[in-house]
Amino acid sequence: MGSTFGHLFRLSTFGESHGGGVGVVVDGCPPLIPLTEADIQVDLDRRRPGQSEVTTPRNEADEAEILSGTFEGLTLGSPIAVLVRNKDHRPEAYSEMSEKFRPSHADYTYQAKYGIRNWQGGGRSSARETIGRVAAAAIAKKVIAAHFAPTLEILPYVESIGALKAKVDTATVTREMIESNIIRTGDPESVGPMIDLIKQVRGEGNSVGGVVACVIRNVPVGLGMPVFDRLEADLAKAMLSLPATKGFEIGSGFAGTEMTGREHNDAFRMQEGRVRTVTNRSGGVQGGISNGEDLFFRVAFKPTATIMTAQDTVTTSYEETELKGRGRHDACVLPRAVPMVEAMAALVLVDHLLRQRALRGDQTP
Amino acid sequence: MGSTFGHLFRLSTFGESHGGGVGVVVDGCPPLIPLTEADIQVDLDRRRPGQSEVTTPRNEADEAEILSGTFEGLTLGSPIAVLVRNKDHRPEAYSEMSEKFRPSHADYTYQAKYGIRNWQGGGRSSARETIGRVAAAAIAKKVIAAHFAPTLEILPYVESIGALKAKVDTATVTREMIESNIIRTGDPESVGPMIDLIKQVRGEGNSVGGVVACVIRNVPVGLGMPVFDRLEADLAKAMLSLPATKGFEIGSGFAGTEMTGREHNDAFRMQEGRVRTVTNRSGGVQGGISNGEDLFFRVAFKPTATIMTAQDTVTTSYEETELKGRGRHDACVLPRAVPMVEAMAALVLVDHLLRQRALRGDQTP
Amino acid sequence: MGSTFGHLFRLSTFGESHGGGVGVVVDGCPPLIPLTEADIQVDLDRRRPGQSEVTTPRNEADEAEILSGTFEGLTLGSPIAVLVRNKDHRPEAYSEMSEKFRPSHADYTYQAKYGIRNWQGGGRSSARETIGRVAAAAIAKKVIAAHFAPTLEILPYVESIGALKAKVDTATVTREMIESNIIRTGDPESVGPMIDLIKQVRGEGNSVGGVVACVIRNVPVGLGMPVFDRLEADLAKAMLSLPATKGFEIGSGFAGTEMTGREHNDAFRMQEGRVRTVTNRSGGVQGGISNGEDLFFRVAFKPTATIMTAQDTVTTSYEETELKGRGRHDACVLPRAVPMVEAMAALVLVDHLLRQRALRGDQTP
Amino acid sequence: MGSTFGHLFRLSTFGESHGGGVGVVVDGCPPLIPLTEADIQVDLDRRRPGQSEVTTPRNEADEAEILSGTFEGLTLGSPIAVLVRNKDHRPEAYSEMSEKFRPSHADYTYQAKYGIRNWQGGGRSSARETIGRVAAAAIAKKVIAAHFAPTLEILPYVESIGALKAKVDTATVTREMIESNIIRTGDPESVGPMIDLIKQVRGEGNSVGGVVACVIRNVPVGLGMPVFDRLEADLAKAMLSLPATKGFEIGSGFAGTEMTGREHNDAFRMQEGRVRTVTNRSGGVQGGISNGEDLFFRVAFKPTATIMTAQDTVTTSYEETELKGRGRHDACVLPRAVPMVEAMAALVLVDHLLRQRALRGDQTP
Repeated sequence: MGSTFGHLFRLSTFGESHGGGVGVVVDGCPPLIPLTEADIQVDLDRRRPGQSEVTTPRNEADEAEILSGTFEGLTLGSPIAVLVRNKDHRPEAYSEMSEKFRPSHADYTYQAKYGIRNWQGGGRSSARETIGRVAAAAIAKKVIAAHFAPTLEILPYVESIGALKAKVDTATVTREMIESNIIRTGDPESVGPMIDLIKQVRGEGNSVGGVVACVIRNVPVGLGMPVFDRLEADLAKAMLSLPATKGFEIGSGFAGTEMTGREHNDAFRMQEGRVRTVTNRSGGVQGGISNGEDLFFRVAFKPTATIMTAQDTVTTSYEETELKGRGRHDACVLPRAVPMVEAMAALVLVDHLLRQRALRGDQTP
Repeated sequence: MGSTFGHLFRLSTFGESHGGGVGVVVDGCPPLIPLTEADIQVDLDRRRPGQSEVTTPRNEADEAEILSGTFEGLTLGSPIAVLVRNKDHRPEAYSEMSEKFRPSHADYTYQAKYGIRNWQGGGRSSARETIGRVAAAAIAKKVIAAHFAPTLEILPYVESIGALKAKVDTATVTREMIESNIIRTGDPESVGPMIDLIKQVRGEGNSVGGVVACVIRNVPVGLGMPVFDRLEADLAKAMLSLPATKGFEIGSGFAGTEMTGREHNDAFRMQEGRVRTVTNRSGGVQGGISNGEDLFFRVAFKPTATIMTAQDTVTTSYEETELKGRGRHDACVLPRAVPMVEAMAALVLVDHLLRQRALRGDQTP
Repeated sequence: MGSTFGHLFRLSTFGESHGGGVGVVVDGCPPLIPLTEADIQVDLDRRRPGQSEVTTPRNEADEAEILSGTFEGLTLGSPIAVLVRNKDHRPEAYSEMSEKFRPSHADYTYQAKYGIRNWQGGGRSSARETIGRVAAAAIAKKVIAAHFAPTLEILPYVESIGALKAKVDTATVTREMIESNIIRTGDPESVGPMIDLIKQVRGEGNSVGGVVACVIRNVPVGLGMPVFDRLEADLAKAMLSLPATKGFEIGSGFAGTEMTGREHNDAFRMQEGRVRTVTNRSGGVQGGISNGEDLFFRVAFKPTATIMTAQDTVTTSYEETELKGRGRHDACVLPRAVPMVEAMAALVLVDHLLRQRALRGDQTP
Repeated sequence: MGSTFGHLFRLSTFGESHGGGVGVVVDGCPPLIPLTEADIQVDLDRRRPGQSEVTTPRNEADEAEILSGTFEGLTLGSPIAVLVRNKDHRPEAYSEMSEKFRPSHADYTYQAKYGIRNWQGGGRSSARETIGRVAAAAIAKKVIAAHFAPTLEILPYVESIGALKAKVDTATVTREMIESNIIRTGDPESVGPMIDLIKQVRGEGNSVGGVVACVIRNVPVGLGMPVFDRLEADLAKAMLSLPATKGFEIGSGFAGTEMTGREHNDAFRMQEGRVRTVTNRSGGVQGGISNGEDLFFRVAFKPTATIMTAQDTVTTSYEETELKGRGRHDACVLPRAVPMVEAMAALVLVDHLLRQRALRGDQTP
């Protein structure tokens, strides 16, 4: 039952990268939210391959169809099913994979766990699976805006690619700045070097990783359910559930472990009638609960496992062999990871907003 | 419902730091596991305050009583309730806290979320809450050993305190090495400097953070439930649900984002009839599923928020003021964080072992 | 989140009676189960309208498409999505319903709860929603047979229609006997009178209810999770979640309340090396756990709410009015309720079989 | 994990009839509800044995201690743990049970399921387990009154004992009428005969069953989460999770299956500005959602399995033998079942009220 997420806004994603299609069922969406396929498509387009010169050339239009849960343009409160058909099948590109486990992919572990795998592509471990999440999150964002926090903004951006670090001011970065470049970084000066780096590693048949940072503004105070469903715990789970992620940190993160308490503590003060902190080492959460400051977290993405050079591996008959990648190849997932991080953040937030409303009603601060 | 954890081995912790007591109910423990209070006490003793010169002097024996779920020394398959009474109450030490929010503590966020808080201590946000987790995990470890993986070893240790880094070889570190020093690091040469550092910051009324690393050996292949309940996702959530944590990384983590795929990929080979990887940048998980290599992850703990110097803050009436800590003071949580990390890892593993057995039966690799 | 069912074999149904389609996502199905659309279609055909002269003439082929979760004819262990398109749309037949609440239908309560409803048919409250359940249960039955209990047989049948009671011997009734008549009763002598009764009430523009009884043979001992997820509790919930149901009883049921303990108790004896009971007033469960005897329960279905005579009702503007049904009309749901009861029973059983395997492994009796 | 109930107001009960104690942890209770032990004790006293001449003479004061979750008389929003110690241990009374399975008790099925059982009493299958439910429900009722529906009244009563039927007018019955007699029936004329019947069967070493009916007044419109978590489905599960229950029906129930749609449908009309039904065959739910009319349902309780005459049974070594009950003996559970039914109803309602508030906010009708 690992493909179900959320306690009140609950989604079940389905679909392999090759097969009838991928999609999602969202159970628990409030009624009366205006929703059309276009609302979903805009985010799917940000996620889809082939969107720019730095992403995988797999060319999928990824057109969403809403199968249920709406009526005359409004949500009904019943499950919303969204389906995206698979189109660009090239199973022949994967024939070698039927017999060899690709290093640092999920081929071996899926085979060991399930005793079977769809070797025509990554199956469920493909980034294509995130289509369902992005579709569900497009709905989640509409719920957040309509019911809870119209000004809440989720702004993930590429902070680094390999060793190249963008310089981004989290206080002023805008969606326009991020979406205006194909890297989706908030630092115009990094765009050129980052594009060059991706092209270079791709030219070498190699790949590169990076970090997506995310700032979320205008978060209501009081989100998070101690002790296990702390807001940062659910965000960490959400982010580590994305393909290729290896780390999560919030606020000061690992760097904060080298500070003393005196350096690290966020003093309180009053500002415009609200309790605010002078600094934000906490990253917007204290004791597992949002404190009204910007949420700020970072997610580590490893370099893409698919590379074009020969690698040692083993066959499905457990003999040592060599595998050389070929075909389509996404040398860096970071630009497309941005809408995925945004999606998971939205899904965590909508669930906690609904949970807090259950607990306190509409009177919550 | 944020105090419930696990899908099949499900625990509900309860209790504030000041009040009748703290504890846990474990629902879903298999029957016929030998279990006595002594099995639980050994881990509670590793967690309890006052155990050494580098931990908080709050002196609690933390004696566990099993209220239900066992009979003649064996588990019954019914809920196991464990209760630890609170004893060392000093509410007067907290009277100032009834009126002022401590910076970087959970006072303000609890007040905002719930409209009320137990100001006699940290309430649920106190590390004391982890008693229930540690008790449940003591049971979980017995289930893992009896039903699934007798040689599985969970070995967390202190990797750094402030800027002091221990040198630990994850391949050879033992529980004896870790538990033989009051820091719980795996590097004998770091023990002295780390003790000195903690004493120094404590002497200054200050505090310091650090990193707990964790290696888990002899993990069965196939644990983890893609796509949301990936093993690393559930570990990330578990760790970020601990008090004072700010980050989680697995395998290569954030450092891996600067590598290329060629450097990062873990080649497969055969060894003693098993599929193994030559390197372990993956940290023991691929595609969200354990691959049989050591699990390796790191958890960032911020410096303790309680410090003995004056800090700016606001009152519960929302006026600016100053607060100066006093009384008992744990200048560094790292030594006591080790059994907490171990507990959460055990709870994640037992749940995934049970889930995998449900899916595949006992035939799973 | 009310459209999700099951703890380990978890399904989410979706779809309104009018709209893109209806279906289900099954999350948690074990891998390596042979599965094709034909396996599902056979049960959908037993459920579909228009299958005989005593069911609604709505004519839907109800063709299932498996969208995900299988590969080369086997389940993958990943979510299985099944879609059935809606075809026989006649929204004009429902135009009056847009303005008037049909008595004893769900029109008013859906409107009150959600503030909106799809008035082009019953929306989610339509029996059409059960397509997803029946599809999921077709898979569940294959899992039960392959992993747990190849001889387990779920045999629901129509026990009464209105005041007409069938005489069925639960010890000898067979699927062939039940499926050989369009009423799906186990009593050949009742078939004719029951068909006549349905035709008569339909001719009068009226409708009639009845009881489905269900015997389940060769149930493993030990299913059920006290204290809340007792087997009969989960069966009761499952059955009462079906449209038009008003009651559930197991074993002696309401009649048993008039017996004394001496009359009611099921004495134990040994038979062929197994513990058996001499009588089965318990209906196959004791203390919430299956005891190896036949499960036996009964489900009450009220008369169909749609009738062809004028009834007092109110408009969506809350004015009193009159409504006269017209169009297609299923005067008795009982024959089609049989596969629905079977489906829900299978879904409860597969979930408890998986839960028990998690708890005890394959060694369970 | 069968001892956990509820989605948002989630309880975990624990404890065997003999052992350290029984109790509950409630996770998800809103904060700021006034709560003391006395609030809980009043309902525990209605449930406890030895309260009158017609209940079991086991004499337990059943004193509740709140271990956590309150502060200065108010709930904190954190888990509320309630503990009741076991006192009246008489393990010697059960020594024969260590070797013989009592007919129609849970001894055999617990042994088969878990491979072990606490034979010193009924363990988890004892009615003593319901203490945790009753304690949780005492809290639930306070939440319902404070947050949602101050006038909501849950009124279960004994409708029949054996063949003796009380005549109760559901429209006028009051708590005072019910609680004024030790049978807890709403019909003063039935009290004497019912007491006599219980005494008679007890004198014969026999036992008797009966029916508890329950009317719930002033239920908000819109509760219930189709399609699986329909209100009646969750009520059915809740009731069938109580010990000794064999049936549940709502509204017209099984009797309604003999009616035609014309007789059965509940016409709508306007009354005092609200949509009302003229009759209430639906029992207050339509399409799984409350319609604002009184909820009305009935629960069948079988005769107590403990009787004082010799019965055929088998030993734990699987040899045929005979067992003759002795010791304390509750010849009829019905009077004590009334607060248990009330408790489960309250737990279902509070959960659905919270779920509906999550979905719609406070604006829900």
